[in-house]
Amino acid sequence: MSDTNKQWHLASRPKGMPTEENFRLVEAPIPKPGEGQVLVRHHYMSLDPYMRGRMDDAKSYAAAQKLDEVMGGGTVGEVIESRNPDFPVGQMVVGAGGWQQYAVSDGRDLRKIDTEKAPASAWLGAVGMPGVTAWHGLNRIIEPKKGETIVVSAATGAVGSVVGQLAKRQGCRVIGIAGGPEKCRIVTEEYGFDACVDYKAGRLHEDLKAAAPDGIDGNFENVGGEVFDAVLARMNAFGRVAVCGLISGYSGEPIPLRNVRSILVNRLLVRGFIVSDHQDSWQPALTELADLVSKGELRYRETIAEGIEAAPGAFIGLLRGRNIGKQLVKLV
Amino acid sequence: MSDTNKQWHLASRPKGMPTEENFRLVEAPIPKPGEGQVLVRHHYMSLDPYMRGRMDDAKSYAAAQKLDEVMGGGTVGEVIESRNPDFPVGQMVVGAGGWQQYAVSDGRDLRKIDTEKAPASAWLGAVGMPGVTAWHGLNRIIEPKKGETIVVSAATGAVGSVVGQLAKRQGCRVIGIAGGPEKCRIVTEEYGFDACVDYKAGRLHEDLKAAAPDGIDGNFENVGGEVFDAVLARMNAFGRVAVCGLISGYSGEPIPLRNVRSILVNRLLVRGFIVSDHQDSWQPALTELADLVSKGELRYRETIAEGIEAAPGAFIGLLRGRNIGKQLVKLV
Repeated sequence: MSDTNKQWHLASRPKGMPTEENFRLVEAPIPKPGEGQVLVRHHYMSLDPYMRGRMDDAKSYAAAQKLDEVMGGGTVGEVIESRNPDFPVGQMVVGAGGWQQYAVSDGRDLRKIDTEKAPASAWLGAVGMPGVTAWHGLNRIIEPKKGETIVVSAATGAVGSVVGQLAKRQGCRVIGIAGGPEKCRIVTEEYGFDACVDYKAGRLHEDLKAAAPDGIDGNFENVGGEVFDAVLARMNAFGRVAVCGLISGYSGEPIPLRNVRSILVNRLLVRGFIVSDHQDSWQPALTELADLVSKGELRYRETIAEGIEAAPGAFIGLLRGRNIGKQLVKLV
Repeated sequence: MSDTNKQWHLASRPKGMPTEENFRLVEAPIPKPGEGQVLVRHHYMSLDPYMRGRMDDAKSYAAAQKLDEVMGGGTVGEVIESRNPDFPVGQMVVGAGGWQQYAVSDGRDLRKIDTEKAPASAWLGAVGMPGVTAWHGLNRIIEPKKGETIVVSAATGAVGSVVGQLAKRQGCRVIGIAGGPEKCRIVTEEYGFDACVDYKAGRLHEDLKAAAPDGIDGNFENVGGEVFDAVLARMNAFGRVAVCGLISGYSGEPIPLRNVRSILVNRLLVRGFIVSDHQDSWQPALTELADLVSKGELRYRETIAEGIEAAPGAFIGLLRGRNIGKQLVKLV
């Protein structure tokens, strides 16, 4: 253990897809916890699509990431120094430590985790923010009924894979949308979805129609653009759409939507949401998700970059869809 | 009173804007009520934008209008022959008699009206389907709170004018969107909206920003397209959008929407609805609306075409926005 705290700052705001030059690696001293604080050594950093939105200086659901400050983000780590009796040394915690090796916290943004139930990394994925996002969008917005057809885009992702598995458990027909045959194989064979549409195959509308012959009752939208349009065209009356991500728009281009009329004709409910607005969903979601993971009934994949130096490259890979499942950076 | 029943049939399906050639005037015998039925002589026929959608042989929220049959639509009239004790001769009723002078009914689609509370024609407008549509979208979807900013497009229309007046009564800042200075004058001076944006003036975004300096909390969308996009760009976090009509799309062109990202960033609720799905709203809405009209506290305008022969031309005028307020055809 060195005595420096390597951290990534935002050096400049990207135009479109970020490049490594938008980030700057800084070596800071390891901070000292004050009274009531703890020092956390991060084991894993979370990389998430929402971070691209925060890199712009534009109105978004989260405050913009400030220039020349540590990139924000979720972390899981171990308390290695404590001046807070609620968090003894050795306690594993999830927090918002950002893109760095160490962080000090007064505990208000920390949540204790049980690594017997699920491994540390899972508390950033299937049993973390992405899992709660999936749980909330599915159960609180889509509210699936047995026998309904549910479509999930970015289906191998940390959110999408959980959405589909939870919907299957509720007796739905579940269709994933993913890019490429390898991702589609994972969606059906590993995650057990009923079907997967490869949006890169060039037959999006036809393949979606074949996979959802009775139409679509619920859509968990992680992508937007052409994929969203294709799903809207197949929605059934009184369908529900949880809008969780519009990843193809994070790089600045607007995503025009053509099948808006489906909202009226089919009396759709379309609701955008951010899981941090829904604190009441976290406890029931995490309890259920941790239980399923501990019993081996909820599967997930991780793409793990090694070492803090790898973070910007891994983040760009995430935005390009190169990861499968939860994108993490392993620090310890 | 002649012994023929003039009626308009759908002769052919329009491409884009309908023409008078799409309709055929037919003289049929006046029907005889059977056991349990009544004969209604129509005083007014209602013309509504949704009828354009039904003229296509495409998936819509209502079954397509059949060729060579009487155009469907709301009517208000008097029972002139009765073999149903629930509806005595002389009773004024609202029904779905269609584009014709007389209709027979078993009473299941008839609703008795009190023309002391509001004139017969109003039961097709402010105290009829359009009024209930306004009431439901505002109170059940937008759920306005005092002090919020509510925007209504097609603000002089039978629906929009009621939406805005009800929202004003609930303590909201209400902004109408309408086409042309004369319609905008009516919106502010007659209906008492706080402001009106003339979408034909070419400064939609700037004028909307000036009228809604604190952003928009609720949008009652009657139009779609560019107007809807401009409103989406100004929505506040947790705003609600009731999608009631997309009139610019009724003639077949898709209406691409650019500001889809606002749904996610602002966690919007967007809900399409058709008032006939919400039978539980009718009674409370009609009670409140009839009460307001009888006290002179809810204003409305009507554009009345005279005689059944005028129906197709009046309908085309409605689609072109030539009417102000509820478009009716007076038959008696």
